[in-house]
Amino acid sequence: MCQLLAMNCNVPTDIVFSFTGFAHRGGRTDTHHDGWGIAFFEGAGVRHFVDHQAAIVSPIAELIKRYPIKSTNVIAHIRKATQGHVALENCHPFVRELWGRYWVFAHNGDLKEFRPQLDGAFRPVGNTDSETAFCFLLQELRRRFGDTPPAIPALRAALDELVQAVSNYGTFNMMLSDGTALFAHCSTKLCYVVRQYPFTAACLSDEDLSVDFSQVTTPNDRVAIIVTEPLTTNETWTQFAPGELMLFIDGAPVS
Amino acid sequence: MCQLLAMNCNVPTDIVFSFTGFAHRGGRTDTHHDGWGIAFFEGAGVRHFVDHQAAIVSPIAELIKRYPIKSTNVIAHIRKATQGHVALENCHPFVRELWGRYWVFAHNGDLKEFRPQLDGAFRPVGNTDSETAFCFLLQELRRRFGDTPPAIPALRAALDELVQAVSNYGTFNMMLSDGTALFAHCSTKLCYVVRQYPFTAACLSDEDLSVDFSQVTTPNDRVAIIVTEPLTTNETWTQFAPGELMLFIDGAPVS
Repeated sequence: MCQLLAMNCNVPTDIVFSFTGFAHRGGRTDTHHDGWGIAFFEGAGVRHFVDHQAAIVSPIAELIKRYPIKSTNVIAHIRKATQGHVALENCHPFVRELWGRYWVFAHNGDLKEFRPQLDGAFRPVGNTDSETAFCFLLQELRRRFGDTPPAIPALRAALDELVQAVSNYGTFNMMLSDGTALFAHCSTKLCYVVRQYPFTAACLSDEDLSVDFSQVTTPNDRVAIIVTEPLTTNETWTQFAPGELMLFIDGAPVS
Repeated sequence: MCQLLAMNCNVPTDIVFSFTGFAHRGGRTDTHHDGWGIAFFEGAGVRHFVDHQAAIVSPIAELIKRYPIKSTNVIAHIRKATQGHVALENCHPFVRELWGRYWVFAHNGDLKEFRPQLDGAFRPVGNTDSETAFCFLLQELRRRFGDTPPAIPALRAALDELVQAVSNYGTFNMMLSDGTALFAHCSTKLCYVVRQYPFTAACLSDEDLSVDFSQVTTPNDRVAIIVTEPLTTNETWTQFAPGELMLFIDGAPVS
């Protein structure tokens, strides 16, 4: 199994604090040492970093911890291989283009005998169940909506059906973003926190590090952090219900 | 206009020496300061780094210069914007998936009124003529060969036709790789050198730096470097002919 981390905000925000705690699970406080990756949307563009080394020893992870890349949508993943060997092409998140936008996807879980018919428009490069599921989702979205991206409610309804279909094959905790909205689906384990005014201090669970967000934010900032297991010891994390697909826009869940 | 750099080798090799010289053109020895990018194939996977900052001040370029990522196919680009604003989504190289492989593309030149009919399978995310040309190439390759990738000679013949078609719209110096072969097309300016046994020392044109390749190679290594303008002062660079599409495999041009 793997661990997932995502951030969705109303203003470009750096993820250095959360990623620092999360990266410790990639070989230090937890055993997810079969690669890691992170993707940051910046406008329509994506910065995509993957490494087959453990996050805790990766020079690229070190860069991410030091270089405050600001983004409104970020998805990160640390991998413990279940299907697919340890190789760069099997590191999440995966990136593909649909409707002239990049889509970023990461998955935690294990799908058994999931072999959807892929029509060739999106094909996995590696050999994980996860990348196959991502290709299936994009193919089906394109099949339903053609060349025109749907409005958010229709997209959400379609994804709700599609993730339920994939979930029939096993555990499918996943995160998906096109840079404007962030979808997160929970099969077994996912939680989130929304940081907004009045901001307080937060202490990481995985490292002796705290940050006082009131010193580094404005009253209008709002940031949602979604993660497999809570990252901080003094914030109230809300657990997803099993089977729940949540949508985050501008740092808040949309009901 | 922009500058292009590519490496094609028979064993995974780091590009630190060549990239160090090349990156100086991104704001120091030349005026290409509107972003840069580099993509390294590692097996079927790709490490893709882009930055809208000038290469000379980018922390990510600094990482690449220090971290010897080994690869058999690398494509890099420093940008001086002609079409498309300065933004991450307009930074080369671009990456897309076709036939279950990643394809990496970068372009130097300027295409006028190039508006091919795109069927939606590959659509540009940014607003450059370059990304449009890349989408067109992949669309046409898929149209000709369907879901089955062709053998290299057929691929080369198809690309030769397609790049000539694009070149009718303007300058189209470009590099394209699927991680096994590297194609380079010259409209106006491109040259290459093959480094092989007996290796000697090489001195960068853009920085007071030399490396004795005989100390860091084995007799079987072979490395082709393809670039807009020669990177070293004491090697013999071969100029491409205008209109020439060259194919490099395992560090050597294939005739």
